[in-house]
Amino acid sequence: MEKILAINAGSSTLKWQLFEMPAERVIAKGMIDRLGLPNSVFTVKFGTEKFKEVQDIKTHKLAATLLLTRLKELGIVEHLEEITGVGHRVVGGGEAFKDSTVINAVGLDEINRLAEYAPLHNPTQAYYIKIFTELLPDAPEVAVFDTSFYSTLPKENYLYSIPTEYYEKYGARKYGAHGTSHRYVSQRAAEILEVPLTEQKMITLHLGSGASITAVENGEAVDTSMGFTPLAGITMGTRSGDIDPSLVAFLADKLAISMPEMINILNKKSGLLGLSELSPDMRDLEETAATRPQSALALKIFVNRVVKYVGSYVALMNGIDTLVFTAGSGENGSELRADICQQLACFGVELDATKNKVRGKEQIISTPTSKVKVLVVPTNEELMIVRDVMRLK
Amino acid sequence: MEKILAINAGSSTLKWQLFEMPAERVIAKGMIDRLGLPNSVFTVKFGTEKFKEVQDIKTHKLAATLLLTRLKELGIVEHLEEITGVGHRVVGGGEAFKDSTVINAVGLDEINRLAEYAPLHNPTQAYYIKIFTELLPDAPEVAVFDTSFYSTLPKENYLYSIPTEYYEKYGARKYGAHGTSHRYVSQRAAEILEVPLTEQKMITLHLGSGASITAVENGEAVDTSMGFTPLAGITMGTRSGDIDPSLVAFLADKLAISMPEMINILNKKSGLLGLSELSPDMRDLEETAATRPQSALALKIFVNRVVKYVGSYVALMNGIDTLVFTAGSGENGSELRADICQQLACFGVELDATKNKVRGKEQIISTPTSKVKVLVVPTNEELMIVRDVMRLK
Repeated sequence: MEKILAINAGSSTLKWQLFEMPAERVIAKGMIDRLGLPNSVFTVKFGTEKFKEVQDIKTHKLAATLLLTRLKELGIVEHLEEITGVGHRVVGGGEAFKDSTVINAVGLDEINRLAEYAPLHNPTQAYYIKIFTELLPDAPEVAVFDTSFYSTLPKENYLYSIPTEYYEKYGARKYGAHGTSHRYVSQRAAEILEVPLTEQKMITLHLGSGASITAVENGEAVDTSMGFTPLAGITMGTRSGDIDPSLVAFLADKLAISMPEMINILNKKSGLLGLSELSPDMRDLEETAATRPQSALALKIFVNRVVKYVGSYVALMNGIDTLVFTAGSGENGSELRADICQQLACFGVELDATKNKVRGKEQIISTPTSKVKVLVVPTNEELMIVRDVMRLK
Repeated sequence: MEKILAINAGSSTLKWQLFEMPAERVIAKGMIDRLGLPNSVFTVKFGTEKFKEVQDIKTHKLAATLLLTRLKELGIVEHLEEITGVGHRVVGGGEAFKDSTVINAVGLDEINRLAEYAPLHNPTQAYYIKIFTELLPDAPEVAVFDTSFYSTLPKENYLYSIPTEYYEKYGARKYGAHGTSHRYVSQRAAEILEVPLTEQKMITLHLGSGASITAVENGEAVDTSMGFTPLAGITMGTRSGDIDPSLVAFLADKLAISMPEMINILNKKSGLLGLSELSPDMRDLEETAATRPQSALALKIFVNRVVKYVGSYVALMNGIDTLVFTAGSGENGSELRADICQQLACFGVELDATKNKVRGKEQIISTPTSKVKVLVVPTNEELMIVRDVMRLK
């Protein structure tokens, strides 16, 4: 029995889970919110207990130190040496990292170099790898990349139709995102169906505030809606997804703003929020759809984009056997799932209305006669991370 | 019997056809090339005869005057009064023009105002309407818009997932393009099949150096791959089609160029040309595909994008009855059609290899048992233009 820590660091949050392995049992989990801001919030859940404290946690180094200190003080571990591996979510793995990887100094430099493709995440995530290497010198650090599930994409799906030299010189290509989630739910769906993943044409829908769709064939990702960055693809909470590239220039000119400001608007003020002028949260839109046409339209556009991407991947794979819903709205939005599946009837998707009432639980929600199996599979990126630590350390 | 002139004006070309109506017979056709440049080339074909001259045609006004003068001198018309209507292709009709329209002074102002959405075309095309109004005062001028076929798009398909105010204030939406071609071939395909267009779910593929895909349901366009401008959608000869909007900013920064320069690269140096580093012309790529991997890859990416868009529209319409190929590669590229249709087998597309050998002729190319009827229909925008003149003048 050993203890493995999964670290998911954002710019102002630190989420973590401590697993007992190989039992895959969560011993404790928690997060630090408002990191680097006044009144940071540190919370832990372990067993039936909860712990919460508010204090200024000004640096990532303090955050990591505090986490390990509290694990001991709360009796969650007796000695820090019990933690025999740490897995880190890293957003941008570029073309360098085709799988999760044990990180040494060279690997750390590479992650920092790839910050160009994930400027908001890679520097912080690399820094946590460095800190934990110092704090837990005997535990290997494993980086689990959001992008590496997409290292199997064929060239015709990852290249854009732009001058080839931009790919060769600047790495301008599709990298994908949410890979750990899509990888987890595709494997889990295959287990639930008791059909090897290699024998299915599967489309996985990660529908959270960030949202993406992945096509999986012969056990490998073949295409994904996320692009060079996580801005591309379907409508998201605040992100536009695909738009005519001309619009980027046209709107920046109209609004008299810089390119970074324009891209920021497409990332932060667009999507469901921009369309609805109310909220990026699908639940708020569902609640107000009856009285606010804009809320109803935003929901309709979301379904429209999902349905079109699914259709494009059915064509790409020349068929579909399995459709998997995951992440916030995918796991909980039974109405959303019904709306999407209704428009996919022509592919042989037949939903069981009763089974589809499920929220946040693994379940097959298609009818027994449905040509396409449809499943809800709650995602678990942390479990995928600690499994990778066990596999590689 | 009357004579109707169809005018298709570009920035440095003027294409025209003179029809005998209602017989829909082409009396004469021709073009002026290198307009505004030294050594402009003026050509006419009429009956079995050909006429060609080279001289400097410096202005659009001179071009129009010369055309009418030569029509008389060559005996194609006896009096200019025989021409009882002129139809003009106009690229950008915005939301103002939902159908082809007889143009008066107010309409002319509106077309000029819409130049914002078609800066390379609308000003010239408006100017030709003005010139012909002066030269042929008794013949009504009808504008036939590339965009008006898309006035039937539902909101969820023409809106982007960006702040709603950008649509309201700046008209940032999908307008489509090639509408006259898609309208013509969809109607013609329905006639050939002897099934009303209103009873078919049809996808039309206009595959020329510019290329686009349109979904037609209940006799109306419901979606199209072209966007706010003709840059969006599938891979084209020199245009990128869809890319992650972030890439526009990333590449402009890397290349240290302005936004207009960046958009110009995406319009003029991307697509098949950018990928192949050889040519925007599919025939050049087919000829070299065996020895140049880049040519083969560019072709593969083209097919890939077409297939994915078709799939997305099958999902959107929840089915497909008819697939129509038109324009240069669509009419002549039998190998291309075979590659595309092979990947659409899952939708019930079954090509007849012998019938598919056709080039530039109307033909049903699917097998009798194919669930989806597949047709080649050569496009004829000029015929559509003069029909609209007859309908509206």
